[in-house]
Amino acid sequence: MLIAIHPKASDKDLANVVQAIEKMGLTAQLVLGNDRMAIVVKGDAKTEEFVKSLELLPAVAEVTVAEQQWYLVGRKFCSSDTVVQVGQSRIGSRHELAIIAGPCAVESAEQTFAVADVVAACGIKLFRGGAYKPRTSPYTFQGLGLEGLRILAEVRSRYGLAIVTEAMDEESLELVDEHADMIQIGARNMQNFSLLKKAGRSSKPILLKRGMSATLDEFLLAAEYILAEGNPNVVLCERGIRTFVNHSRNTLDLSVVPLIRRLSHLPIIVDPSHACGIRELVLPLARASVAVGASGVMVEVHCNPQEALSDGQQALLPEMLAQMCTQLRAIHSAVLEKT
Amino acid sequence: MLIAIHPKASDKDLANVVQAIEKMGLTAQLVLGNDRMAIVVKGDAKTEEFVKSLELLPAVAEVTVAEQQWYLVGRKFCSSDTVVQVGQSRIGSRHELAIIAGPCAVESAEQTFAVADVVAACGIKLFRGGAYKPRTSPYTFQGLGLEGLRILAEVRSRYGLAIVTEAMDEESLELVDEHADMIQIGARNMQNFSLLKKAGRSSKPILLKRGMSATLDEFLLAAEYILAEGNPNVVLCERGIRTFVNHSRNTLDLSVVPLIRRLSHLPIIVDPSHACGIRELVLPLARASVAVGASGVMVEVHCNPQEALSDGQQALLPEMLAQMCTQLRAIHSAVLEKT
Amino acid sequence: MLIAIHPKASDKDLANVVQAIEKMGLTAQLVLGNDRMAIVVKGDAKTEEFVKSLELLPAVAEVTVAEQQWYLVGRKFCSSDTVVQVGQSRIGSRHELAIIAGPCAVESAEQTFAVADVVAACGIKLFRGGAYKPRTSPYTFQGLGLEGLRILAEVRSRYGLAIVTEAMDEESLELVDEHADMIQIGARNMQNFSLLKKAGRSSKPILLKRGMSATLDEFLLAAEYILAEGNPNVVLCERGIRTFVNHSRNTLDLSVVPLIRRLSHLPIIVDPSHACGIRELVLPLARASVAVGASGVMVEVHCNPQEALSDGQQALLPEMLAQMCTQLRAIHSAVLEKT
Amino acid sequence: MLIAIHPKASDKDLANVVQAIEKMGLTAQLVLGNDRMAIVVKGDAKTEEFVKSLELLPAVAEVTVAEQQWYLVGRKFCSSDTVVQVGQSRIGSRHELAIIAGPCAVESAEQTFAVADVVAACGIKLFRGGAYKPRTSPYTFQGLGLEGLRILAEVRSRYGLAIVTEAMDEESLELVDEHADMIQIGARNMQNFSLLKKAGRSSKPILLKRGMSATLDEFLLAAEYILAEGNPNVVLCERGIRTFVNHSRNTLDLSVVPLIRRLSHLPIIVDPSHACGIRELVLPLARASVAVGASGVMVEVHCNPQEALSDGQQALLPEMLAQMCTQLRAIHSAVLEKT
Repeated sequence: MLIAIHPKASDKDLANVVQAIEKMGLTAQLVLGNDRMAIVVKGDAKTEEFVKSLELLPAVAEVTVAEQQWYLVGRKFCSSDTVVQVGQSRIGSRHELAIIAGPCAVESAEQTFAVADVVAACGIKLFRGGAYKPRTSPYTFQGLGLEGLRILAEVRSRYGLAIVTEAMDEESLELVDEHADMIQIGARNMQNFSLLKKAGRSSKPILLKRGMSATLDEFLLAAEYILAEGNPNVVLCERGIRTFVNHSRNTLDLSVVPLIRRLSHLPIIVDPSHACGIRELVLPLARASVAVGASGVMVEVHCNPQEALSDGQQALLPEMLAQMCTQLRAIHSAVLEKT
Repeated sequence: MLIAIHPKASDKDLANVVQAIEKMGLTAQLVLGNDRMAIVVKGDAKTEEFVKSLELLPAVAEVTVAEQQWYLVGRKFCSSDTVVQVGQSRIGSRHELAIIAGPCAVESAEQTFAVADVVAACGIKLFRGGAYKPRTSPYTFQGLGLEGLRILAEVRSRYGLAIVTEAMDEESLELVDEHADMIQIGARNMQNFSLLKKAGRSSKPILLKRGMSATLDEFLLAAEYILAEGNPNVVLCERGIRTFVNHSRNTLDLSVVPLIRRLSHLPIIVDPSHACGIRELVLPLARASVAVGASGVMVEVHCNPQEALSDGQQALLPEMLAQMCTQLRAIHSAVLEKT
Repeated sequence: MLIAIHPKASDKDLANVVQAIEKMGLTAQLVLGNDRMAIVVKGDAKTEEFVKSLELLPAVAEVTVAEQQWYLVGRKFCSSDTVVQVGQSRIGSRHELAIIAGPCAVESAEQTFAVADVVAACGIKLFRGGAYKPRTSPYTFQGLGLEGLRILAEVRSRYGLAIVTEAMDEESLELVDEHADMIQIGARNMQNFSLLKKAGRSSKPILLKRGMSATLDEFLLAAEYILAEGNPNVVLCERGIRTFVNHSRNTLDLSVVPLIRRLSHLPIIVDPSHACGIRELVLPLARASVAVGASGVMVEVHCNPQEALSDGQQALLPEMLAQMCTQLRAIHSAVLEKT
Repeated sequence: MLIAIHPKASDKDLANVVQAIEKMGLTAQLVLGNDRMAIVVKGDAKTEEFVKSLELLPAVAEVTVAEQQWYLVGRKFCSSDTVVQVGQSRIGSRHELAIIAGPCAVESAEQTFAVADVVAACGIKLFRGGAYKPRTSPYTFQGLGLEGLRILAEVRSRYGLAIVTEAMDEESLELVDEHADMIQIGARNMQNFSLLKKAGRSSKPILLKRGMSATLDEFLLAAEYILAEGNPNVVLCERGIRTFVNHSRNTLDLSVVPLIRRLSHLPIIVDPSHACGIRELVLPLARASVAVGASGVMVEVHCNPQEALSDGQQALLPEMLAQMCTQLRAIHSAVLEKT
């Protein structure tokens, strides 16, 4: 159950709502949006009578029990665009194009610094790199773990880049929270609800990737899990869906970008690298992502892709990254001017 | 079977190849690309011996019996981009962005001229509108048929717009061939092989839409059917594929655009209207199409979409068409400059 | 527009309805179901006033203008199961399991007779074999055409087997109509509406295969096209849909079988050969088809699959066909007894 | 890396292999199949030299570094069918048909016992019911948690039914391990690799459901994760994949059943309830599952489905469960006799 609070409710009236909830043996979680406030009620409490009694309280604007729907992520709860600050970047700001770049996996300090050199030289401010790698096979490289996180922290202090890296489970989430600037929840974990709840209790911004077969509602409800726990800083990321298509690894579904911008206040970026799995397609799809209205892109880069421990065939070469930045900035300007 | 001819083969040597084929009771179809030539052999003739005898002829560069593959549509047969002239447009020319616009269906002379006014005012040169409509239900409006074609012909003479319209079967193809400037083969007919063969014998350019569940190879092989009959003027059109997604009618698969540009010399454009089925998504997806490298877009426009006899909810309003043209031209320039 | 006629309407009252329609310059097509009757109105005539005037006529039970829906194929129009007689088989009869078997393509009289020997020996009464083959590539074997139809007609007279074979276009439909007992419309032509209309004007039963990406409604509406032209003898065939799955050619969607049995009076059978594309999966999937409630199966058989001109890897070997028949009959009996 | 051990290797030779691995700073995990043995090497160790040195050891049959492939789940590692004992059931035994039935969620002791009455009366030995529910929305009923597990334990002691229930994360896995007889890993967690590893260290059998968009290889590799940690008792479960189809919740992909039986020694069962989401389709799809060769089915039952807290519309009514058991046993006998 979710209770929308009147914008001008007094502290006392608010306290009355919390008290009414707790009297029923339920938990009240206060959630703050940019310009609105809501209370998430935890526990099973959908008696009609109770709902009616809540609706009579002065602070209550609306009680939502239609439970299959998202609310906190929606424009109704927060009409202005959410801007998520990560390091020096303001993801979701209309005037900024966020570019996140780096290797698929942190393989060694040497390899990671080499890529960071390239990324920093392009004027990019956000660095990605996996320390914990969800791998289809138990026999492939699973990431350097904590050692990888330490290398990433070193990238931050050497290059001033903010760090975005994936957490795979509750244990790694705690470590990522400690070492990185933004916590990524991967596509395979988009409906790992225990992990989402834990991410919702972190104070770090979350990058939530769309699951390979997630509908738009499922994607927004996954974000709702995070917001409902109190963390408002979520950036969504489209990364391709699974279809019958066999010429690219996944099919980038760019239609979600303008739709999410209408339905939700959360920023949405695009990961063309995982969407296609082929280096040569990354640039054109990144251009399309910016043109369609995404707030940024996330791409993989490697200095020796043929030696990469994972996903080498989709990594951009250093010179392609520079070229991409030039192209994306030109398109971002053209879109900004004309829309 | 397909026989690639040496670029410098003499007429006499060429005649020898044809003669050798006909001596076997088979038919030889000569196909000309921009800079190469091939012979398509019709009939069942894949004895090893016969292939070997052909390979010995001086004019023969290569004999292809690996039959599951396209050849004439490929870069190997023709390395330079094919440019298809339709009216004043040169579709596939790097410096031109082709825009095809018009109503889903020709409903009346009045409605059609009203849309043509808008289209011409935007500086667009290609007009679309269906006279023969493939409809899911037998009880919905099936198009005005010949009367519709006559209205379209009138649009050409009044506005100087070139006409693109769909043929649904062999009978309507003959009439469309007579009245229009470009013959569209719709998504549902992409593997109507009898229709493709007939289109291959027309002298008018063909707009071939990708089937809703067609792979890249199937799409190119459908075009190969047309080229193999002697018609080199084919423009491909991505229009969305069928996926699990329920927030838009189809899922636009933009990755085919850069892939087809690498594999094939044929131009490819995008139809964002059918891909999404929602007016508000057409503009952003059209921008993405140009940014990804398409040679043009095809969109639906209606002056009173709420009264349209088909697909009203995806039709652009007149003012949106003008806005789209401005945006697409800005992105086309940005892409042209930076790539 | 569709007009349901009162079961006990007099001939005179019926004539009045036809007259009212024709007075408006429209065409009335009378369609007979097993126990009901309807009139399909062709032409654009949905003025409210006209509908109301029709509803006042004594013969009229209901006027349907909600045009996106099927009607004639539904249980509302005809509550009892339609049984389609083909040769000695009664497809759709609860007590009969229809098995259609034969080669993918008619390659020669010899090969066809060899398979017919096997099919007849299994007690099967329906023989399939393609004379016109819709092929993805223009360079692969396209079928023997009329010669193939003559070989099939010879199979009928030699073995007493009824012949099921595909028509690809209007021209071949006429020839198939003349030579075969049942006309197949293939998956790629499920929305070739001109062909469906022509099939609706034939007096032969139609086997309509589901398109690779057709929804249930689209499938039923394709059948509606045939019934609306006056041919009530349609058998539906599920043959697999296109999904992300890469371990079999298509994914058999058996859920349509019980759904169609509830919604429609038309019989539905299953083609497991095209659904999977792998010989070893045909038997288990055929068993599943009978268990789920299909009225029959259609399978491909070849005596030398490694030499088949098409789809050899999915053809059953002769001994597998016999084994399949034994298994299917046992399951059919078990289902018949317990449901 | 994975090392297959010679069936007749001596203990001393085996110890030498372990020693060689540990000397490199790596970990050796011994895995026992029914008739073979393997060592999983953890850590990054794919130098050619090291592999060669291992291959020279007498106990080593084969070293596999082709890491994208499953091995322990395959017929090569274990040719005979794995039979997983759960309570009195032997899942995977050719002569037994495993039926798992129960409510979607444990809602109360009362509701659970009412369903258990029905299940036990049908002669079923395996009881399902969710105490931890992965829910798309944060606002819907999330399960009774530990209280639910205690109710399930009570079902076991009252009715002698073995308990199958889902674990959602590492914490709930420990509790489920303690209270239930079989641990279910749900579709959304099929690639929650941390959870799979933890399940691999449990001594309880695991029911692993296929992810909604998992390929066959991904499904088998998820099971490989469990086996590679030392737990050989895994039962696979097909539960429908996500496709464009909108007439049922998911599309049951029965082709995986015969394929997995050829490729893997692990038992596979089918969940038709989640596959279709519609009560009326459960019976026919359950019949198809048994006919295709599955070792069992899992279905949802509820005594008052209209009041169910989750998935009520797919729950069988008590009388349907009895009917299903009769039908499935008849088909199982027919298949057993004829194959």
